[in-house]
Amino acid sequence: MIIHPFLMKIKIYREGWGMINYYLCALFNRMHPMKLSWKPYTLQLKHIFAIANSSRTETPVVLTQIEHEGMIGYGEASLPPYLPETQQSVSHFLEKINLSTFNDPLQLEEIWEYLDGLEEGNMAAKAAVDIALHDLSGKLIGQPWHRLWGLNPEKAPDTTYTIGIDTVEVVKEKTREVASDFNILKVKLGRSEAEDKGMIEAIRSVSSLPISVDANQGWQTVGQALDMIGWLHEKGAVMIEQPMPKHDLENIAQVTAQSQLPIFADESVQGLADVANLKGIFSGINIKLMKCGGMRQAWKMANLAKCLGMKVMIGCMTETSCAISAASQLSPLADFADLDGALLISNDCFSGTKIKRGKICISNQAGIGLEA
Amino acid sequence: MIIHPFLMKIKIYREGWGMINYYLCALFNRMHPMKLSWKPYTLQLKHIFAIANSSRTETPVVLTQIEHEGMIGYGEASLPPYLPETQQSVSHFLEKINLSTFNDPLQLEEIWEYLDGLEEGNMAAKAAVDIALHDLSGKLIGQPWHRLWGLNPEKAPDTTYTIGIDTVEVVKEKTREVASDFNILKVKLGRSEAEDKGMIEAIRSVSSLPISVDANQGWQTVGQALDMIGWLHEKGAVMIEQPMPKHDLENIAQVTAQSQLPIFADESVQGLADVANLKGIFSGINIKLMKCGGMRQAWKMANLAKCLGMKVMIGCMTETSCAISAASQLSPLADFADLDGALLISNDCFSGTKIKRGKICISNQAGIGLEA
Repeated sequence: MIIHPFLMKIKIYREGWGMINYYLCALFNRMHPMKLSWKPYTLQLKHIFAIANSSRTETPVVLTQIEHEGMIGYGEASLPPYLPETQQSVSHFLEKINLSTFNDPLQLEEIWEYLDGLEEGNMAAKAAVDIALHDLSGKLIGQPWHRLWGLNPEKAPDTTYTIGIDTVEVVKEKTREVASDFNILKVKLGRSEAEDKGMIEAIRSVSSLPISVDANQGWQTVGQALDMIGWLHEKGAVMIEQPMPKHDLENIAQVTAQSQLPIFADESVQGLADVANLKGIFSGINIKLMKCGGMRQAWKMANLAKCLGMKVMIGCMTETSCAISAASQLSPLADFADLDGALLISNDCFSGTKIKRGKICISNQAGIGLEA
Repeated sequence: MIIHPFLMKIKIYREGWGMINYYLCALFNRMHPMKLSWKPYTLQLKHIFAIANSSRTETPVVLTQIEHEGMIGYGEASLPPYLPETQQSVSHFLEKINLSTFNDPLQLEEIWEYLDGLEEGNMAAKAAVDIALHDLSGKLIGQPWHRLWGLNPEKAPDTTYTIGIDTVEVVKEKTREVASDFNILKVKLGRSEAEDKGMIEAIRSVSSLPISVDANQGWQTVGQALDMIGWLHEKGAVMIEQPMPKHDLENIAQVTAQSQLPIFADESVQGLADVANLKGIFSGINIKLMKCGGMRQAWKMANLAKCLGMKVMIGCMTETSCAISAASQLSPLADFADLDGALLISNDCFSGTKIKRGKICISNQAGIGLEA
C-alpha cells in the first residue's frame, strides 16, 4: 500500500507525539512524585492538664499526609506550648520540603538526611514527615513497622497512665477511676516537697500500683534527690525521670550511681547524637518521636541505648492515635512506655494502637497500624 | 424432626471429632513450623590464596536452608581454617536449634536472642541461620533487605579486589589482569618490610588504583606503624586495617591519632558488644557477617558505629554469592567494602549481588537478593 505523503506526515506527527507522550509518561511514572499536604488541628483535652508550673485544655498539632501511588501515609507534629515549635513554624518548615527527587518512600536513610539538612531543629515537623513516610512505605509493602523491625508485638509493655497534679481529693478520685484499667501509674512532681509527697500519699491511699515518677528537673542537690528517691522507692515507685536540671550531668551521674531506682533522661536527651554521651550518667533514656525527629531516629536511638547497656523508655506528648500508633511500633523494645497521650483527648481523629487493661496492643494493620 | 438417640450420638461424635480436628489444624497452622536443614560444601578457590603465614586452595562452608510456608531461605557459614569453627562444629550447633516455638520468621529480635543464648561463640553457625531467616522473611514479604533497611542500592560502594601475596612478576600480572575491572585494590601485608614494600611497588608499577591495606596485626611499634602508613599514603593507599595486634589498643589509639589514613579494626572487632569500646581507638570497623553472627547484628553494628562517629567497612570471608549477597544489602551504608569473596571461587552455587566494573550491584530480588 502506498501512503499519500500528507497522510505519512500525519502518521509521523502522531507517532512522534505518541513517543513524546510516552517518554513524558515514563518520566512521570519513574519520578512517582510524593505529595505532602498538612493541616493544623487542635486537640481538646478531656481534663485540664496541669504540670508543676502550667496548665492547659488544648494542644495544637499539625496533621500531615503523603500521597504516593494511590496510598496515603499519615503523620503528626504535636506542639505543646512549652516547646518552641508552633503550627506556624511547622507549616513554614513543611513548605520548604520537595520530595520530588525521591522516587521510593522507603529510601528513609536519604530522605532523613535531606530533611534534617534543610534546617536545624524543627524536630516535631521532621517527625510529622518521617511518620507519614513510615506509614506510607509500610502500606506500600503491606507490613506494620514492628514486624519490619523484627519485633514481637506481644512483647509490648504496659503503658503508664499519668495522674495530673490536683487537690488530694481529686487525685484520689482519679486514681480510683483508672486503677483497675492500668498496671502502672505516672506522676509528674516538681512542686514543693510537701506537695509532691502529698500527691504520692494520695495515690498510695487508694492504689498499690507501681508508680513511675517524672521529677521534671525538680531537685536541686544530690542529697535532696537521693532522699526523695529513697522515700519514693519505699512508696513503690519503680523509676525516676530527669531528677535534676538537664545540663547538671555530673550531679545526675552521682544520683544514678547511688539510686535504688533506675534514672531516665528526658530533657537531657533530645536526639540520636545525645545518647552515647549519657552512658554512665543515666540508667536509660526516654525516647519521644517529637523530640528526636520520628520513627527512624527513635529506632536507632533505642538500638544504640541497648548496645550501650542502657534501658529504653518510649514516651509521647499529647497526641492523636496517629503519633501514638507510630511510637507504639517500637514499644516491644522498651522497658517502660508512657503512651497515654491519645487517651487524654476527646477529639482523636485516628484509630490504631489501643490500650487494653493497661497493655499496649499494637494493631496488625500495615504502616503505623492505623485503621482505614 | 426427631433424631433417634443413636444418630444423635453419632452427630455429637462427628462434630466433636470435627472440632478436635479443627483445633489441631488451627494449632498446626498457627505454629507454622520452620524447617532448618544444612549440608557441608567445599569452595574451590580459583587461585592459591596466600596470606602472611598460610596458603590454601579450598574453603569449607556449610549451606543452610529454612523452609516455611512453601518458601525457602538460604544461608551460609564460611569456615576458613585459621578460625575455630569447622563443618562439624557448625553441624553440632545447628542440631541444637529448635525453631518450632517461633511462628513468624520476622521476629528476628527474639530468634537472635534464642540463637545467641544456645551456646557462646559459633558466630558463623549463627550467621548461617540468621542469613537464611533474613532471606526467608524478605521473600515472605516480597522485599529485599536493603529496601527494608531504608537504603538506596545505588549508593553501594565499589568493592576492593584482593591481590594475593606472590612473586613480583605474578603480582604485576594479576594486577594488570584486574586493574580495568576494579576501582580499588586490596593488599594483605604482614611479611618483612622489604617484602611488603616490594608488593606495593609491584602493584604501583602497573596501576594507579587506590589501595586498601590490611596490615593483619603485623606492625610491632607505633613508630614502625606510622612510618609504614606514611610510606603507604605516599604510594596511594587510602585506608589501613588492623595495624597492630588486636589487644594492643593503647598503641593503636596513638597510631590512629597520628595517622594520615583512617585506621579500621578487623581482628579487634568481633561483634556488637565490641564497637562502643573502640571509639577513639580506631577510625572505623570492618563488619563481617561470619564474625558478628549475621545480618541483624551487622546492621546494628553499622548503625552503632555511625552514631559514634566511626566509619564502616563491610567485609567477607571466601564465600558463595549467598553470604556475599547478604552482606551487600548493608553496603550502601559502608565507606569501604571488601566483598570479592565469591569472585575468588570456581564453584559458586548461587547468583545474586554482582560486581560490575568494580561496583557492588545489589539485586532487586526479595530477601538477600538471590536469583531463583
